[in-house]
Amino acid sequence: MAGVRALLLAAAVCACARTEEIVSTPKPKKVLDTIMNPSYIPAEEKHGSYWKKSAASTLKAKLEETPNTNKAKNGILFIGDGMSVATIMAARTFAGQLDRGLGEENVLEFEKFPISGLARTYCLDAQVADSACTATSYLAGVKTKYGVIGLDGNVTRGSCFPQLHKGNWATSIGEWALEKGLDVGLVTTTRVTHASPAGMYAHTSDRNWESDADVPDECLSLGCRDIAYQLVMENPGRHFKVIMGGGRKEMLPNVSNALTPSSGRRLDGLDLTEMWHVDKIKRNATHQYVTDRNELYKVYNSEELPEYLLGLFQDDHMDYHLQAKNQPTLEEMVEVAIKMLSRSKNGYFLFVEGGRIDHAHHDSLAHLALDETVEYSKAIKKAKSLTSEEDTLIVVSSDHAHTMTVAGYPSRGNNILGTSDTAYGDDNMPYTTISYANGKAASIGADGKRVDVTLSQEFMNGDLGYSYPSLVPLDSETHGGEDVAVFAIGPWQHLFTASYEQNLIPHMMAYAMCLREDKHSNCKPSTKTNFWSTGASTRSSVSSYASILTVIVTFRYFY
Amino acid sequence: MAGVRALLLAAAVCACARTEEIVSTPKPKKVLDTIMNPSYIPAEEKHGSYWKKSAASTLKAKLEETPNTNKAKNGILFIGDGMSVATIMAARTFAGQLDRGLGEENVLEFEKFPISGLARTYCLDAQVADSACTATSYLAGVKTKYGVIGLDGNVTRGSCFPQLHKGNWATSIGEWALEKGLDVGLVTTTRVTHASPAGMYAHTSDRNWESDADVPDECLSLGCRDIAYQLVMENPGRHFKVIMGGGRKEMLPNVSNALTPSSGRRLDGLDLTEMWHVDKIKRNATHQYVTDRNELYKVYNSEELPEYLLGLFQDDHMDYHLQAKNQPTLEEMVEVAIKMLSRSKNGYFLFVEGGRIDHAHHDSLAHLALDETVEYSKAIKKAKSLTSEEDTLIVVSSDHAHTMTVAGYPSRGNNILGTSDTAYGDDNMPYTTISYANGKAASIGADGKRVDVTLSQEFMNGDLGYSYPSLVPLDSETHGGEDVAVFAIGPWQHLFTASYEQNLIPHMMAYAMCLREDKHSNCKPSTKTNFWSTGASTRSSVSSYASILTVIVTFRYFY
Repeated sequence: MAGVRALLLAAAVCACARTEEIVSTPKPKKVLDTIMNPSYIPAEEKHGSYWKKSAASTLKAKLEETPNTNKAKNGILFIGDGMSVATIMAARTFAGQLDRGLGEENVLEFEKFPISGLARTYCLDAQVADSACTATSYLAGVKTKYGVIGLDGNVTRGSCFPQLHKGNWATSIGEWALEKGLDVGLVTTTRVTHASPAGMYAHTSDRNWESDADVPDECLSLGCRDIAYQLVMENPGRHFKVIMGGGRKEMLPNVSNALTPSSGRRLDGLDLTEMWHVDKIKRNATHQYVTDRNELYKVYNSEELPEYLLGLFQDDHMDYHLQAKNQPTLEEMVEVAIKMLSRSKNGYFLFVEGGRIDHAHHDSLAHLALDETVEYSKAIKKAKSLTSEEDTLIVVSSDHAHTMTVAGYPSRGNNILGTSDTAYGDDNMPYTTISYANGKAASIGADGKRVDVTLSQEFMNGDLGYSYPSLVPLDSETHGGEDVAVFAIGPWQHLFTASYEQNLIPHMMAYAMCLREDKHSNCKPSTKTNFWSTGASTRSSVSSYASILTVIVTFRYFY
Repeated sequence: MAGVRALLLAAAVCACARTEEIVSTPKPKKVLDTIMNPSYIPAEEKHGSYWKKSAASTLKAKLEETPNTNKAKNGILFIGDGMSVATIMAARTFAGQLDRGLGEENVLEFEKFPISGLARTYCLDAQVADSACTATSYLAGVKTKYGVIGLDGNVTRGSCFPQLHKGNWATSIGEWALEKGLDVGLVTTTRVTHASPAGMYAHTSDRNWESDADVPDECLSLGCRDIAYQLVMENPGRHFKVIMGGGRKEMLPNVSNALTPSSGRRLDGLDLTEMWHVDKIKRNATHQYVTDRNELYKVYNSEELPEYLLGLFQDDHMDYHLQAKNQPTLEEMVEVAIKMLSRSKNGYFLFVEGGRIDHAHHDSLAHLALDETVEYSKAIKKAKSLTSEEDTLIVVSSDHAHTMTVAGYPSRGNNILGTSDTAYGDDNMPYTTISYANGKAASIGADGKRVDVTLSQEFMNGDLGYSYPSLVPLDSETHGGEDVAVFAIGPWQHLFTASYEQNLIPHMMAYAMCLREDKHSNCKPSTKTNFWSTGASTRSSVSSYASILTVIVTFRYFY
């Protein structure tokens, strides 16, 4: 019926249409007022009633929401590093197109959350932030200087002495949670010592001090510790039940010989993975160190999960999902982390970073940036399926934006990674829908003209390594300064709407989780069962012995 | 004390800082890891306690919020045309810097609203939307095709016959409000016949049909009416109590002689301003047509406000605020509109567009785009001060994004309209913080190299007419495809959070205002006084006679 109607209407189109031009040629003219190809549009969407009904349905669902002021026994903070609002839109479209839809109508998992907000990302001394100062903001609740982690603005980047002065420390919500007897974990696709995860445990005046090889001698002699050392040997990192990501090289000594080649960077000779092991032995805690997906899978399926898990799946950052071999996906790491942490009677705080969205953007690798965002969304879907919004607050955000834009007036369903199908530049050359303000692939070719992307085999083949065009040539594309989106579901989700400073995020999470001094009325101990509400097969593998141990160890924290 | 402490800490900075470099030279080196100039940072912000206290204060305010499920007697929808998330951030910074702050910490009026959301803007046939299909979305609640207004997707752009078929019409919330006896108005800085305001009253298969001169003869002969005609002579436009903006030329005949020069474009000989007058005479309604700020001021101060007001302040779009003479500001128009509409016993719906943010962006005129955004914010501040959140729902959003980004790692407080003070491009030339993916000022100079903006006197002088650099040369910079922000305050504000399709907006407003069939429990007639809760001097000028007339006329609607 809809088809017949569409046919009748198509026939009724008056010949007077001045701008009617169906895009069909491979080389579109420059017609900003072009009419898109109607065949792209699903028939039902052409009727106003479709949009009214879908709006009514969304409205109804919104009206059925009730305030959730439960205690958030568990809190999970997901950060998509560099996941700007434009990245979310492009990734949603990309995923929809992979799924054979037009793309634009697709919805990523976290976009289904009932609450959204906007966070301002600027640092104390920078209009456009980096991942260090923002990690201090969204994890420790304090804005600080560019490049600085876990210290307030009294510390100048690269200075050693102020780093040692506890009065300057900004402790993370991971530490606040440990203090209250919760279990804590971190999962990232970057080195576990990279800026974002370091916000969970490190106090360092330079984000680059990932191993002792990076710390100036003068600072080492004063007692400044590198980030990896802090993670393994100091509070709160040594109490984290779960640590997963890349970055083995920051943990291992730089001593190679013919028999034992090492990719380590450490000059102090320490093998921090071994020291992690020794620390857990000393504390009589079961533990497991794994280095690839197979080993992680064994842990996941073991009859008794270890109390502590350290997974370092690459020497450096983990590989991009589309280029990875025998490393777990972010989704898999999150599944294991939640399985581990859900044993905690007192609940848990988990930090998860989709860290390589940012790296892909820095190299103008839009294809990889969008795929990493989709992987991030899958991990969130998994977390949501393994928890209950009755007792688990999930917050999803980003640390800062990037300079990627979605430009032109492409038709609905046009390949988000392709060129605009409705217009050329005034230089009579096509242009990509996605581009960057700056980055590796500058706009100007050797001939002094703008580069024609369609002459690039890499581009035409959709190669993962194709760097999208940019205005200003820079080795590394920069961040963007605009606000990032925040999404929330679970207890006290409603706090996360509005526009606010990014450093509010951990304070709101802490409030929901009863980690702050100002407490809501549901901050009494829960009478419900403390274990995972879904996944019987998983639940059965939870060891009560391990749980008891967990509690004992947790309460020993700081003694 | 803080100063002493900062001094001590500065002295304690270890000489080992590898990247310490205070930016002081006019030509910064390419040092992404640069340390910003600490003197930029307000002393109090250096202490973690500052951020914890400010977070606690924001959290406290959030906790004090209570759900507002009152009937929204009045609804005001503000649309900043082309106001992307990046535009908001840049405008906030710009305004803060004008106010002698660093800028980043500034907060625009609507950013103070307790609720924010994200709206997806794509059209039925376009990945990146225009202002026509989006106006149909956020005003009529239906997504339609690029370039089409007030009609659903069964209509092909430029086709006449389907435009006349009421089954294809998508009526606006302005019309829904009239049907329920509310007063309705529209205010814009563009032509009142431009795409966004046209979404309030027009059903046109081409947004360009602003006067009859634009409508193809074949369509005219079939009975298709131009947008200006629809506004003045048809429902619902002829019932709008307030119409203010630019666009006289679409209303006036194209007949000039030595005595009466005309700027009109109409070929049908109609003077629609006269016809508006005649229509109101016929309906025995007091009315006033004004064409400049002085005349508007007289109306504002008159003892008895007219029942109807038509203000056309320019032949074309209104001038940019920074270039205007004797035209009211958006803030002033909003003040008059609210004064007019507040007389309505049944409440009102007002649509306000800050329409020239978009135009400035299209010409890559970042300075003007940011200033227009600031003006838009002032108008919202005025609206908020003249209404009560107890009975007035104010929603602020945008129709679509633009390709402007805020790039690089400029220092805190660096001129948002200037070049990055911490890095050069790899071509050893400075680059602007703000740039566009495409637009007038392409990146490549006559010498085949990227243009050095600092050689431009226009740029160095901060000229309003300076077009910011862009990657792809295009006469008119394009829109951006990412989601736009939504802000809400007033009854049912909480509905406006989360991520949703843009067409949900009018349905949510209509629900709050009891304009839909599905009603909430507070949709009974209000027992409160119906007049403005603030501004006694204004209230005294409200004529009860006019109010009675209003009600009579309103109830005659559609008879």
